[in-house]
Amino acid sequence: MIPVADARARILDAMCPTEAEVVALAEAWGRVTAAPLTARVTQPPHDVSAMDGYALRAAEGAAGAHLAVVGTAPAGHPWEGTLRAGEAVRLFTGSVMPDGADAVLLQEDAGEADGRVTVRETVVAGRHIRRAGQDFTAGDVLVPAGQRMTARDIGLAASGNLPWVAVRRRPRVAILATGDEIALPGEPIPPGGIVSSNAHALAALVRASGGDPVVLPIAPDDADAIGAAARTRADLLVTTGGASVGAHDLVQSALGRRGMALDFWKIAMRPGKPLMFGRLGEMPVLGLPGNPVSALVCAVLFLHPALARLSGLPDADPPVEPARLGAPLPANDHRADHLRARLTRDEAGRLVATAFERQDSAMLRLFAHADALILRPPHAPAAAEGDAVEILRLAPLGI
Amino acid sequence: MIPVADARARILDAMCPTEAEVVALAEAWGRVTAAPLTARVTQPPHDVSAMDGYALRAAEGAAGAHLAVVGTAPAGHPWEGTLRAGEAVRLFTGSVMPDGADAVLLQEDAGEADGRVTVRETVVAGRHIRRAGQDFTAGDVLVPAGQRMTARDIGLAASGNLPWVAVRRRPRVAILATGDEIALPGEPIPPGGIVSSNAHALAALVRASGGDPVVLPIAPDDADAIGAAARTRADLLVTTGGASVGAHDLVQSALGRRGMALDFWKIAMRPGKPLMFGRLGEMPVLGLPGNPVSALVCAVLFLHPALARLSGLPDADPPVEPARLGAPLPANDHRADHLRARLTRDEAGRLVATAFERQDSAMLRLFAHADALILRPPHAPAAAEGDAVEILRLAPLGI
Repeated sequence: MIPVADARARILDAMCPTEAEVVALAEAWGRVTAAPLTARVTQPPHDVSAMDGYALRAAEGAAGAHLAVVGTAPAGHPWEGTLRAGEAVRLFTGSVMPDGADAVLLQEDAGEADGRVTVRETVVAGRHIRRAGQDFTAGDVLVPAGQRMTARDIGLAASGNLPWVAVRRRPRVAILATGDEIALPGEPIPPGGIVSSNAHALAALVRASGGDPVVLPIAPDDADAIGAAARTRADLLVTTGGASVGAHDLVQSALGRRGMALDFWKIAMRPGKPLMFGRLGEMPVLGLPGNPVSALVCAVLFLHPALARLSGLPDADPPVEPARLGAPLPANDHRADHLRARLTRDEAGRLVATAFERQDSAMLRLFAHADALILRPPHAPAAAEGDAVEILRLAPLGI
Repeated sequence: MIPVADARARILDAMCPTEAEVVALAEAWGRVTAAPLTARVTQPPHDVSAMDGYALRAAEGAAGAHLAVVGTAPAGHPWEGTLRAGEAVRLFTGSVMPDGADAVLLQEDAGEADGRVTVRETVVAGRHIRRAGQDFTAGDVLVPAGQRMTARDIGLAASGNLPWVAVRRRPRVAILATGDEIALPGEPIPPGGIVSSNAHALAALVRASGGDPVVLPIAPDDADAIGAAARTRADLLVTTGGASVGAHDLVQSALGRRGMALDFWKIAMRPGKPLMFGRLGEMPVLGLPGNPVSALVCAVLFLHPALARLSGLPDADPPVEPARLGAPLPANDHRADHLRARLTRDEAGRLVATAFERQDSAMLRLFAHADALILRPPHAPAAAEGDAVEILRLAPLGI
């Protein structure tokens, strides 16, 4: 049995970021940049007014002065002349500053009548002017490579005049659920069988992690049926079931017969000890337990990071956060534990994590209602209410 | 000018959740349930073994006992008989408990040879047995209405045998950017003009908030062109630009001429004072400022919650979190401020928010690099390093 962190490191080492593809900026939200996005224009392209008002020469802008309004420059319609002594030009937010002007008289500090404007508050040279390139200059990196694009990044790329962006192809993850006892929802359930939840829960997790899931037909406990999955072309093959010890644990042997090179297959964790990792040629294979809670906890800890790495994100580790315990916990044994917990906040606004009374890994409903996992390292001593722990929030990940 | 919270309440009041539609469970991730999801089956459907081992009668399971192995019951292949005195049945995780058996002998506590099993550790009646219905019973609510489905919810619905789920239709949000000075990325830029970032940044935000964006062609500063947007059929029309005072602020008047009933149009906030809200017949209209940072901050505060409400989520307010200040802040004026800030964690793991030195609302790049907004209420007194503040994290929202 190897530690969780070692297992994750070995899995991540085997993940190669997908190749780049070009998508329209309008389709790039949530995608991971494959190269830095570099501005094609300078923003603002010229000195522009930050306010509605008048462009003038600062030297002529003392309170009480009168100037001739010689033009109007709405945004998008610059005034083409050069401002001369005694002149002002009507401006709006975003208007290009006319040549010769070095100050903006705010509209509320001005009185306009008969083609003349009266200065009511002395202007300050340069004030209320946004300088060319204040936001960025052509050639500046707007978004670095390896970043999942937010709505703000989309806006920034747009204002840098980038209609197309190079992003990593979404990782394609094939999912194979195995077992004679399982059926897909709505299909006939075999005697003593259950409805399979793993394939579609994992497909949703793949989607939540930025990948494209491919759900393979359920394979019965039959080496040929399972082995057929070896022909799949994907960035990662994920199996569920058949990874623990026992006569009916066929995934490892069925794929082994097709040439799978096993890396490891037991992790010192709970729930989810029987996790397998290997390679079928170029394709990494992650074998998750058949138990739905174990499969999903393992997927949070290993598959979500694997997808981050496949997507080209530099930091693939799960986003662990600090919290305080809402109730004491007993000492832990040699396996890292992942306790389903509810989150609240104390008066100081700090997160408080309280483990559910029941931690049965067969209770998917309890897990679905959990706000977070409390991460308990191997051999963690007993902990009291208020002690610091690390948690992993699930719903913010879409998981 | 009305306060931010009042403005949000008035906007949310005007939002009606979209109607329900049925989608395949495989497509339901991230969708909001329109009705409770109720289990169609009981899980587990029978008493099942939680471990690999042997089913037997507890009364016969004392250490040293020998029993005849009369059958094998892999998961999905129940043993059909009734266990009699002196008998045991080979079991695996998930196997149905045979009639007559009330205990499980763990594989590691058993020795099997010549069709007989030897008990090495005395069994406990009921231990390692998962009772029928332990996870849920047919008829139980698995996922309540008004919940954005996580990967766990998808798994839970699958195990409840639900191939289809009723979810709210994704809200359709039309986006109209206005201005003579703007062009879409890659298109010819007018003299003194800039590349428009608002339409696609807002479209990304709509997508991040679970909606379907419809980007309308850019409208020049022309009442007819802007007014044409009134013919749009959407759950919400969002405009940018033309919402502040000034000769070139046409959106309000252009849509007013088409019958828009104005609700309010100024909010005591920074950035983003000139926000407009009204209705064109049944369709709510949210008029955002033209400044890209102001438009996006307003969208975080008003459009993201509006989409939550349109999607049928009960709690639509932005997910504000507590943090401590990393640097002092001056007293605030009468407008709620939204300071672009970087987040770190202190030694105790608490979030520390440090406002950027520059808060210029024309600097989209700075905003894109911010981790959070610090929310400063109107008239907030000066605050010292370490003081508690409320923040709103952006990237976790996809914004």
